[in-house]
Amino acid sequence: MSTPTLTRVRTAYARNEEADRTEIWIDLRPRAEVEAEARALDERLAAGERLPLAGRLFAAKGNIDVQGLPTTAGCPAYAYWPEADAPVVARLRAAGAIVLGTTNLDQFATGLVGTRSPYGAVRGAHDPARISGGSSSGSAVAVALGIVDFALGTDTAGSGRVPAAFNGIVGLKPTRGIVPTTGVVPACASLDCVTVFARTLPEAEQALAHMTSPPARALPSLPQRAPGPWRVAVASPSQLGELDEGWGEAYEAAVAQLVTAGAEVRTIDLTPFTEAAAMLYQGAFVAERYTAVGHFIDKLTAEGGDGLDPTVTGIITRARDIPAHQLFADQDRLTALRTHALAELTDADALLLPTTPGHPTLARVAADQLGANARLGRFTNSTNLFDQAAVAVPAGEVNGLPFGVMLIGPAFTDERLARIAALLQPETWVAVVGAHLSGQPLNPQLLALGARLDRTTTTASVYRLHALATDPPKPGLVHVGQGGAAIEAEVWRLPTEGLGRLLTALPRPMTLGRVELADGTHVPGFLCEPAALEGAADITEYGGWRAYVNATR
Amino acid sequence: MSTPTLTRVRTAYARNEEADRTEIWIDLRPRAEVEAEARALDERLAAGERLPLAGRLFAAKGNIDVQGLPTTAGCPAYAYWPEADAPVVARLRAAGAIVLGTTNLDQFATGLVGTRSPYGAVRGAHDPARISGGSSSGSAVAVALGIVDFALGTDTAGSGRVPAAFNGIVGLKPTRGIVPTTGVVPACASLDCVTVFARTLPEAEQALAHMTSPPARALPSLPQRAPGPWRVAVASPSQLGELDEGWGEAYEAAVAQLVTAGAEVRTIDLTPFTEAAAMLYQGAFVAERYTAVGHFIDKLTAEGGDGLDPTVTGIITRARDIPAHQLFADQDRLTALRTHALAELTDADALLLPTTPGHPTLARVAADQLGANARLGRFTNSTNLFDQAAVAVPAGEVNGLPFGVMLIGPAFTDERLARIAALLQPETWVAVVGAHLSGQPLNPQLLALGARLDRTTTTASVYRLHALATDPPKPGLVHVGQGGAAIEAEVWRLPTEGLGRLLTALPRPMTLGRVELADGTHVPGFLCEPAALEGAADITEYGGWRAYVNATR
Repeated sequence: MSTPTLTRVRTAYARNEEADRTEIWIDLRPRAEVEAEARALDERLAAGERLPLAGRLFAAKGNIDVQGLPTTAGCPAYAYWPEADAPVVARLRAAGAIVLGTTNLDQFATGLVGTRSPYGAVRGAHDPARISGGSSSGSAVAVALGIVDFALGTDTAGSGRVPAAFNGIVGLKPTRGIVPTTGVVPACASLDCVTVFARTLPEAEQALAHMTSPPARALPSLPQRAPGPWRVAVASPSQLGELDEGWGEAYEAAVAQLVTAGAEVRTIDLTPFTEAAAMLYQGAFVAERYTAVGHFIDKLTAEGGDGLDPTVTGIITRARDIPAHQLFADQDRLTALRTHALAELTDADALLLPTTPGHPTLARVAADQLGANARLGRFTNSTNLFDQAAVAVPAGEVNGLPFGVMLIGPAFTDERLARIAALLQPETWVAVVGAHLSGQPLNPQLLALGARLDRTTTTASVYRLHALATDPPKPGLVHVGQGGAAIEAEVWRLPTEGLGRLLTALPRPMTLGRVELADGTHVPGFLCEPAALEGAADITEYGGWRAYVNATR
Repeated sequence: MSTPTLTRVRTAYARNEEADRTEIWIDLRPRAEVEAEARALDERLAAGERLPLAGRLFAAKGNIDVQGLPTTAGCPAYAYWPEADAPVVARLRAAGAIVLGTTNLDQFATGLVGTRSPYGAVRGAHDPARISGGSSSGSAVAVALGIVDFALGTDTAGSGRVPAAFNGIVGLKPTRGIVPTTGVVPACASLDCVTVFARTLPEAEQALAHMTSPPARALPSLPQRAPGPWRVAVASPSQLGELDEGWGEAYEAAVAQLVTAGAEVRTIDLTPFTEAAAMLYQGAFVAERYTAVGHFIDKLTAEGGDGLDPTVTGIITRARDIPAHQLFADQDRLTALRTHALAELTDADALLLPTTPGHPTLARVAADQLGANARLGRFTNSTNLFDQAAVAVPAGEVNGLPFGVMLIGPAFTDERLARIAALLQPETWVAVVGAHLSGQPLNPQLLALGARLDRTTTTASVYRLHALATDPPKPGLVHVGQGGAAIEAEVWRLPTEGLGRLLTALPRPMTLGRVELADGTHVPGFLCEPAALEGAADITEYGGWRAYVNATR
């Protein structure tokens, strides 16, 4: 008999075969092994265990340790067999997610193109004549083609965002230090971040919630933000430089969409951002890549260089002779540019930029490896140098291909950036606990709005549930903190516009707010007005509305 | 007629001629020019202007801009004429201090010896056969010989502390960033600090109070310290390495003195400190010196190298070829060592160490330039690499020559370190506002304790003064914050032990506490018990006790 997770796994392998993009994977786990893991998981679930990411499938970029698979960083000769999962992989697995394998990447995570790999160039998910973007190429395409639910990437220059833009998916580049990089092959150790790709923002945020740790860096208290519209900094067309045809208009449309959603928009000077971006590969910072793998490359080159990507090898070996005194000078210049950049962003919640200036074909990149790559990083390269967080999201299409934008903000504003980015997203989630549950009287409302069931879960144990004295009786979910219980909940995915319509039609005393789920994430969900509790019966002991209705029917 | 500041200036020039250490100065200002400045200052004072550092004379290390003198950094060919004072110099002058000139230094502040200068080796203040220490050599000796009241140095490896130890004076190495380094020739720009030397801790602290700025770095809130004894970390003799004869015993005596003063002492592992110290010159960090002046040295060398110190030139030009990838690797190692070091200092308020392992002769240094210098930095080199603050103070003598120790603590604990260091100091200050003022009945008590008048000033404008109903009437100084006034005060310098005796003999209702002065510094001073104010007359309007006594006599 096929259990839910087992079904999901079989669908994934079928989808993978159907897609026929073998270059996505460096090591795909044997289907039988993963099916056995899925069966075991379903047994634990059947026994009552709560696993917030149960049934979620993911892929890990090939520079991240996954126990049982070699870590290659895109170079066969570099491969080692890790003794344990990287902590970020271990955390996702502990929450019930299943890893399908390790994905292709620009060798040693050096590139934004996705073509620099002896395992093959990774083609774009929507147009195989175009690049997938990199370096997290395989992870992004595996998500975009629906093979996995989410995937891990890394981001130094923009590797967690460029492939998101090219493949029409979401890429979260968290604040440096909040996701551990232990068990990840370093590119530039002081800049690297582990990132997550997913098809929707809530899915990516849910995964990220399980990846973070108590930050290695002290958490500065962010200035409390006064209530008011989001303040979004944007760039003037003249400062964006040469863009692909239609990209300027697509960017302007995204700006307009934020304005329509109530944001205040202000044009800033982009110069410090693009000047710092140019320093990442043209200055001394690239020497950190030699620190990471230079000695290995030198040795392998001396032995014949089998499996080394020539472009990557050239970049890293040229960095060997960059003098340390130039690095000190570059660090000084970067400090000045960062000061300028932060001054530009004073009073802004985020900076909105196109993720890249364009989307080249494989042929174009092959003709100009370094030039094409440098162009792609124009807007992404400065983010980690400036110690900022970023959220890359799809923002429509240009000529039938995905167009993407980024929201960039100071360290530790990840959550705020996601909220602003959500204004550009067509889909959201809603948690329901009562009459909107599957099979309950108001469920057809959700279906009519285009909602699809995402998962069944419970709230965090901080709620009490009441049967309100309405006609028909409705559930009243009340946040209590102390003395609360976990209440059965369904999470539905629906168009953002649909959620708005749901709210518009909502009768008193029901409300929509943010509901905390068992896995610690917060999603929009049904609550009620305080006055509604008069004469209401506390039915928390039933564990959920459905059980109460069945018991009292 | 000779005015007070003019007298002080004439004494200073006389003292300088008497000392006959022409190598102290690179540029000593013409006496007539300084005398004219002193006369002008005295006129302003006579007109009622308040200048908290009036009459104080200071010297600036030759790598700090002083308008009207060339900035040489110890290299004649490097000299330029600054358009303005460095901000730190400007602030001291604005407060009434007078700068006598620029002092000799190890060229480009590269050295801890004081001998690496074409302006001559600076000999120790107490034994001219021994080195002065460097790189702030001239500044330290000018203070030690009593020519100036205080002097500015800089500290990258230990240049603000080693010469303090060798010349028996105090050296404050403040937290990086709280004193601006604008207008200072960089040694390692990311590590350099401007420091201050003085013969006593209060004198150095007073000067520093006028040098600091709103910090360039965000001020993290230090964890509130629970009341209790100071907790001081110390090193075991085996980890201190080879020390000069008698230095181990002198260090133990300083530890014992802190214990006697009530501190709790705990032995820690010194390994991360000494390992990081070795990295400063032996690793890649020295390349930052090439960033600062390497191109100048290369050019001058090509033109014949006139006036270049050969040892300094060798150190800086060898740093030209250090690769950036090694710097990244060293930064990683430093981060690990710093983590280890901070863990060792958990629950400690400060680390007490000898400032240096010994005090070599000029001959010994000439015989082994690099080795002798490296040994001197064993305890100081790690402080700026670890982003710590330090206070170097005299701690007795060994074989008739000064011995010095350092208190080292986290960034922004400068004030705390000074309080602990004060426990080792033989002199302190006391502020008096009533019967202990010059010419008042109890002034002979102070004189009997060995006190000397340091200066006449006022309190900050946060006090009210009362005539207590005692017999004879005594003044009651009360901190009020709002509605306070500046009260006439004298600051007396006296042995710490004498202050203790004063307190032991103090009758009710008088108390001794900390009094805030007009220049924002706090010194021990006379206050009174709250109950004493019953029946007391508020005499604040008189501006001071003396005026009240005169008016009511």
